[in-house]
Amino acid sequence: TALKQGKRVIDLGADFRLKDPEVYKEWYQIEGADKEQLTAAVYGLSEINRKKIAHSMLVANPGCYPTTIILALAPLLEEKVIDPSLMIIDSKSGVSGAGRGTSLNTHYCETNENLKAYGVPKHRHIPEIEQELSLKADQKVQVSFTPHLIPITRGMLSTIYTVPLEGIEPKDIAEIYQAYYGTEPFIRLLPAGELPHTKWVAGTNYCDLGYSWDERTGRLTLFSAIDNLVKGAAGQAVQNMNIMLGLEETLGLLGTAIYP
Amino acid sequence: TALKQGKRVIDLGADFRLKDPEVYKEWYQIEGADKEQLTAAVYGLSEINRKKIAHSMLVANPGCYPTTIILALAPLLEEKVIDPSLMIIDSKSGVSGAGRGTSLNTHYCETNENLKAYGVPKHRHIPEIEQELSLKADQKVQVSFTPHLIPITRGMLSTIYTVPLEGIEPKDIAEIYQAYYGTEPFIRLLPAGELPHTKWVAGTNYCDLGYSWDERTGRLTLFSAIDNLVKGAAGQAVQNMNIMLGLEETLGLLGTAIYP
Amino acid sequence: TALKQGKRVIDLGADFRLKDPEVYKEWYQIEGADKEQLTAAVYGLSEINRKKIAHSMLVANPGCYPTTIILALAPLLEEKVIDPSLMIIDSKSGVSGAGRGTSLNTHYCETNENLKAYGVPKHRHIPEIEQELSLKADQKVQVSFTPHLIPITRGMLSTIYTVPLEGIEPKDIAEIYQAYYGTEPFIRLLPAGELPHTKWVAGTNYCDLGYSWDERTGRLTLFSAIDNLVKGAAGQAVQNMNIMLGLEETLGLLGTAIYP
Amino acid sequence: TALKQGKRVIDLGADFRLKDPEVYKEWYQIEGADKEQLTAAVYGLSEINRKKIAHSMLVANPGCYPTTIILALAPLLEEKVIDPSLMIIDSKSGVSGAGRGTSLNTHYCETNENLKAYGVPKHRHIPEIEQELSLKADQKVQVSFTPHLIPITRGMLSTIYTVPLEGIEPKDIAEIYQAYYGTEPFIRLLPAGELPHTKWVAGTNYCDLGYSWDERTGRLTLFSAIDNLVKGAAGQAVQNMNIMLGLEETLGLLGTAIYP
Repeated sequence: TALKQGKRVIDLGADFRLKDPEVYKEWYQIEGADKEQLTAAVYGLSEINRKKIAHSMLVANPGCYPTTIILALAPLLEEKVIDPSLMIIDSKSGVSGAGRGTSLNTHYCETNENLKAYGVPKHRHIPEIEQELSLKADQKVQVSFTPHLIPITRGMLSTIYTVPLEGIEPKDIAEIYQAYYGTEPFIRLLPAGELPHTKWVAGTNYCDLGYSWDERTGRLTLFSAIDNLVKGAAGQAVQNMNIMLGLEETLGLLGTAIYP
Repeated sequence: TALKQGKRVIDLGADFRLKDPEVYKEWYQIEGADKEQLTAAVYGLSEINRKKIAHSMLVANPGCYPTTIILALAPLLEEKVIDPSLMIIDSKSGVSGAGRGTSLNTHYCETNENLKAYGVPKHRHIPEIEQELSLKADQKVQVSFTPHLIPITRGMLSTIYTVPLEGIEPKDIAEIYQAYYGTEPFIRLLPAGELPHTKWVAGTNYCDLGYSWDERTGRLTLFSAIDNLVKGAAGQAVQNMNIMLGLEETLGLLGTAIYP
Repeated sequence: TALKQGKRVIDLGADFRLKDPEVYKEWYQIEGADKEQLTAAVYGLSEINRKKIAHSMLVANPGCYPTTIILALAPLLEEKVIDPSLMIIDSKSGVSGAGRGTSLNTHYCETNENLKAYGVPKHRHIPEIEQELSLKADQKVQVSFTPHLIPITRGMLSTIYTVPLEGIEPKDIAEIYQAYYGTEPFIRLLPAGELPHTKWVAGTNYCDLGYSWDERTGRLTLFSAIDNLVKGAAGQAVQNMNIMLGLEETLGLLGTAIYP
Repeated sequence: TALKQGKRVIDLGADFRLKDPEVYKEWYQIEGADKEQLTAAVYGLSEINRKKIAHSMLVANPGCYPTTIILALAPLLEEKVIDPSLMIIDSKSGVSGAGRGTSLNTHYCETNENLKAYGVPKHRHIPEIEQELSLKADQKVQVSFTPHLIPITRGMLSTIYTVPLEGIEPKDIAEIYQAYYGTEPFIRLLPAGELPHTKWVAGTNYCDLGYSWDERTGRLTLFSAIDNLVKGAAGQAVQNMNIMLGLEETLGLLGTAIYP
């Protein structure tokens, strides 16, 4: 209804993220949004869809897991340097990712000093990840995705296992990331050999990216860290708003948020 | 009703802890238990009331804070070596003390990395503490009591500030504790100068006691640590059951409980 | 030597905090600073000594515990509304208070899920506290002080037990705090009945003050919370620098620090 | 030298785990043990090598990561139901895995509220994992292995991504695990759909195993949790000692260890 009044909307839920209402229904077990609105909606990963976001009436703000994952994989798929049939994603999230509602799952004594996987094999963020990666790969892709709950308040780290295509070398990876993200205000490319810590991004809108090339196995592992409450949620919404309104993209986002 | 069937009962709630139903009503804002039952009930602090517990039909298991506090203070009041008019108690509790029910108060993200006092100035454990200490002091005593919530799962530490009476020396304190608790299976008297860590009692039914005598100010500070889920709750109930049934008092209590 | 070159200095250590070199020697077991320099040094608790700091060549930045304690007690002693002979201070500190040096004491596995007191009865912050409080009380005062180590990274809470003098009422306390601190940029007076959480000050230069008046016992408990790494250390140093240089006092201090 | 005196030895270090001294030298950058001793040494994963351990003079106690990984993968490789060329292992360890030595890495303030990967791509536990898995697979295998440091004291979880061979069904996996481990005292096979929590094994010698079969991708994810200080270290050493001495295998291992 806000839309019908001609207002521009950034939606923080999942309703407008998936283009195909059938897919939505399959993964969320409820009817999805109106087809027309879905067509109009832009998936709001700022660095990937900046131009479309700028002119959009309806932006679907991404989930936190997809933000870490798509930012790491999109350039490599678009440049066709990794095998799109083998992407295995092991993600770890702090407890604030579960929201502020109360449940045994977020009870201090159940979560503290514990470590577990959950939501396998069909976590609801999968279709969103596959939809966007398929666009980049120019073919339908599938991923394996396992989220884990970690006893920290803020922070999310995705460890992504990929297989580089033949002839690709480590410097190609570095160059692609540099070309895509070298001037991005909220993506920090770590020096070779350095891996992200979630503490380095806590309270900020940054996504820190690192990678490890294993000569022995010929595999490439990507590491992507964000603060799930900022770049993974409200911070990216503000970034999108800035883009939509033609403001400086970093406006209001260079401070740090510290609660909780 | 279990009582009416002639069964012996250990009650884990507060209903039978306070002898005076008026006091109960004042602090709990509801009507208390039957006067006759209150008269029959024994306050189940094992080390203090062992003989009465042995023959009781109805044992009121103590609260966790009172367990740490009364064990530390009772011998010193009974021997009249500290000023009964000045006892200031600063207690710290792990989150499991708040129970397994869900609330924002026990939500991981509200509790983790936080430190706060709560429940001042009238926490419900005060009348229970004052009732038992008054009995030991042979006069009505009042205490200042401030509980704090600490981001650990298990563990409770009470720091108790007292003023020794004139002529009392540090060795008197050591001797009194030794005389009262030297052979207790679940009380460990720490060597002079050593202070308890809650980690040392985690998962056990022990209460660790230490103290610090300050020559400069002439004050005596007591330190009392338990695992609130064991000696502060179910462990003491088992200890009382063993006493009631004439079993070895340590039966079932020498292992460690580790969840959560 | 910086001083000798005519440079103004803010010293973060303890060397210039104590006016009396004999007291320094007693508590630190080493020779103190030069008497002349001690005379020149100003104790750098910004809100208490703002005017002297403004013109000082040498500011001794306070310890973290003393900051919480002196801010809470100074107005009440100066206005002579509490008994200066009975001040009992129970403080709790996060682990960053122990510095970044490595020791078993700061090892994750020793500290995590643990709770303990330490440094009794003669913690080195005591003479600094007593020196400043004596100035405010116009008489020599002594305090009882017990620090505790708590498994959080940042944050410090002092719970301070006092006895109001006869005739003093709760509203007097509120009015005094308002008069002293109502316009302070970095002191937040909590509404009656609300107690500070360290999480509310984490990453900031604020000191949050609350209190609880116990009608039953006639005692007054004060609560004072800071981030030990900011108002308890570097933040207050910046605040003092701003005062010394005639800059806006909040310059550089309204953001939040988030690491670690 | 203990060996030369005819004493039987359980070695907790890495020195005797690798059969090939060249491999040892490559991964540890120092000369390995004597070839003869290496030949005599038995890799002490109790459930896998029980018979050899029983008669061995020299048992090389496994590393903590390899324990979780080999226990999960060995039966599936031996039964040839998964592709031995694609095993991707994402492991998470509590801080006690880093030992009690002090370093910035284990400093509370660096580790608490943080999440990171480390030791890629060549963590020293890899050759040990590949050596044992190659024996089971009857061919040389390689794995991808990424360890992560998690802010808990005890606990280790390995999430292992595999590809089942054609024709294999979920019930085959359940049956194989049941056949291999159904009567093991220290392996608990979780019901289908349930995933291990490290808290469930904390302080115990158990290894909890679960798995998730993803119909969509045709992949199989294994989950293996232990307490790194017990089954991952001293507990398994005791288990091996019991086996060597012909004692009841669970002797001394059914209690729980709770410190730290």
